[in-house]
Amino acid sequence: MQHRVAAIGGDGIGPEIVAAGREVLDAAGERYGFDIAWTDFDIGAERYLATGELLTEEDIRELSKFNAIYFGAIGDDRVKPGILEKGILLAIRFHFDQFINLRPIKLLDGVTTPLANKKPEDIDFVVVRENTEDFYVGIGSRFTGRHEQKTLEVVRDIYSVKFGLDVETDADELAYQIGVITRPGAERVIRYAFDLAERREKKLTSVDKANVLSDVYGLWRDVFTDVAAGYPDVRTEFNFVDAVTMWFVKNPEWFDVVVTPNMFGDIITDLGAMIQGGLGLAPGGNINPAGTSMFEPIHGSAPKYRGMDVANPLATVWAGSMLLDHIGEHEAAAAVLRAIEQSILDGYVTRDMGGAKKTSEVGQYLASLVRTV
Amino acid sequence: MQHRVAAIGGDGIGPEIVAAGREVLDAAGERYGFDIAWTDFDIGAERYLATGELLTEEDIRELSKFNAIYFGAIGDDRVKPGILEKGILLAIRFHFDQFINLRPIKLLDGVTTPLANKKPEDIDFVVVRENTEDFYVGIGSRFTGRHEQKTLEVVRDIYSVKFGLDVETDADELAYQIGVITRPGAERVIRYAFDLAERREKKLTSVDKANVLSDVYGLWRDVFTDVAAGYPDVRTEFNFVDAVTMWFVKNPEWFDVVVTPNMFGDIITDLGAMIQGGLGLAPGGNINPAGTSMFEPIHGSAPKYRGMDVANPLATVWAGSMLLDHIGEHEAAAAVLRAIEQSILDGYVTRDMGGAKKTSEVGQYLASLVRTV
Ligand SMILES: CC(C)[C@H](C(=O)O)[C@@H](O)C(=O)O
Ligand SMILES: CC(C)[C@H](C(=O)O)[C@@H](O)C(=O)O
Repeated sequence: MQHRVAAIGGDGIGPEIVAAGREVLDAAGERYGFDIAWTDFDIGAERYLATGELLTEEDIRELSKFNAIYFGAIGDDRVKPGILEKGILLAIRFHFDQFINLRPIKLLDGVTTPLANKKPEDIDFVVVRENTEDFYVGIGSRFTGRHEQKTLEVVRDIYSVKFGLDVETDADELAYQIGVITRPGAERVIRYAFDLAERREKKLTSVDKANVLSDVYGLWRDVFTDVAAGYPDVRTEFNFVDAVTMWFVKNPEWFDVVVTPNMFGDIITDLGAMIQGGLGLAPGGNINPAGTSMFEPIHGSAPKYRGMDVANPLATVWAGSMLLDHIGEHEAAAAVLRAIEQSILDGYVTRDMGGAKKTSEVGQYLASLVRTV
Repeated sequence: MQHRVAAIGGDGIGPEIVAAGREVLDAAGERYGFDIAWTDFDIGAERYLATGELLTEEDIRELSKFNAIYFGAIGDDRVKPGILEKGILLAIRFHFDQFINLRPIKLLDGVTTPLANKKPEDIDFVVVRENTEDFYVGIGSRFTGRHEQKTLEVVRDIYSVKFGLDVETDADELAYQIGVITRPGAERVIRYAFDLAERREKKLTSVDKANVLSDVYGLWRDVFTDVAAGYPDVRTEFNFVDAVTMWFVKNPEWFDVVVTPNMFGDIITDLGAMIQGGLGLAPGGNINPAGTSMFEPIHGSAPKYRGMDVANPLATVWAGSMLLDHIGEHEAAAAVLRAIEQSILDGYVTRDMGGAKKTSEVGQYLASLVRTV
């Protein structure tokens, strides 16, 4: 059995951690009788700085031939914040309509959480983040008079009617941002979350701020309520995003599956990453069940550690486990996760986790473990 | 010396906790030689259910005669989420242009934080939340064709151009929400935060998500940078909101003053409340330095405990301390805060904090302490 997988190492520590991850996944293949044919893509800051290209038409055409992309990280000190994130990472998520951003929040044995008195059995849930709508649609403008007149006029009208503010007089002093949620966009990800909850503890929490941002999140709530009718055995609750951040810290054991609009999902999954031990241990899957999905550590490219062989590869390896699950190699996926747990118990980890090993050493160790655990 | 203060008990536990707070503030007045003339306002769910009125013209006219409002809580199970919050709480904030939402995050001696190994000296910072703009402006719509045609057309245009989505075909399936940030709106609150940082540890963190919501938060960043030029002695940093939630939990000692747009402020101050021991201990001030300001506990109305004399009044009393500070009674404000700390050390607290005292008992105890501490 052969799987074809695209690899984008990206910037900073990206190439090193993806190399470590590939070694582990290849070892899993040896044990479980499959082979991964990797295709490398040169996408990231270096190419952007050299050619001005972010994600090209050709990149898209070639990537679309794969079910799965293994992604390291992008981000570079020489590039303004937002350019690479929007031009590459978000562009891939949007272009391939990866509407599910799946983020397991799970405290592994032997990992230190910053929360007092919480044990692995207390922190074990999954966040399903909507990944293509909300305030991530990139619609907005700075009010300089240079942009589409029609839009500006409307915003100006609404703003002046509402607040009696004469924005005409300081026309370059205003910026607006528009978030959009559609019924089909909300429905598909909420349905996915319900299906997932059915396979777990049958409890689903929906996150919003419908008491203030009533238009977008009012629609989200209505769709959630409609979908819930088809899953009578799943216990559901609505939680405001501000409250969710409190309960993640105080009572993470309350959660099983959490479904959230895009922007709040960004925030609460970073918080979730921290309670499970930090970004060094937090993987994410960007999933289109019928298309090209992408698996990545949720941390950044940490440019200052580039090439030093010190970055923690565990989040990337864990993302690799999610990738294997996605392509149907469930046993191999489980073995990779067991290997991660074993390496932590053995103290065979990088400096950020209190160990003394290098990125490549951890990769090799996990590869050897995966053959036996 | 007499101060005139408006009191809005509101719903649920609101009236009880405000009553306790008033007792403490009155005692502080006795000791420090001033007198508070309270004027009660009947605003909240009961009146809304009886008359349909939220915040009336007359309420506004009368409230505008005061420098300070002491506010309990609003919210009632019989009213749909959002109605009272937007119609009363946010209406007051917006109407009186209370552009500063000040939220001290401080772990008091003797209080339990859910964070491991953090002590009072580690958790002591202030969040300055912008309180009148951003996604709280209430501009948005459900796409039913019933709303202002002009706006809908524009959003539809942008959306279809951007995503090739023919939203014409499912015209009632779309909702949008618009956030607005203006230069003067950002500037005044950022300036306030810099001034505050100058009086503290001279460190200011700005929160945004400029790498994705580049229009509104790009403007926010530019304004921050411009204002910073006038405060060369204040160390500054930009933090993305997702990262901020991580560092609040992992390294709260890094923070001194944090300035944030409205919506992210809502989220991170609830998280902040939790790390300082929970909502029972979290006060907030909604400040317009030249107008009518409002001080409140940041928790809700907890309708199920209404009238039971069990609610924790400490957040409200602390908000009262902030009120005293605001009206220039700094010594009295400090005494109230010391009384809170003393009651906690004495274990003279309500059930939620592990004690056995009633709301009114804690109020009386604090009033007696305030005369001596
Ligand atoms: C890098 C950034 C654009 C991205 C996001 O905001 O989605 C990241 O924070 C994440 O959560 O994957
Ligand atoms: C009740 C709600 C409208 C309010 C807000 O979102 O601002 C509250 O959460 C707060 O933080 O004061």
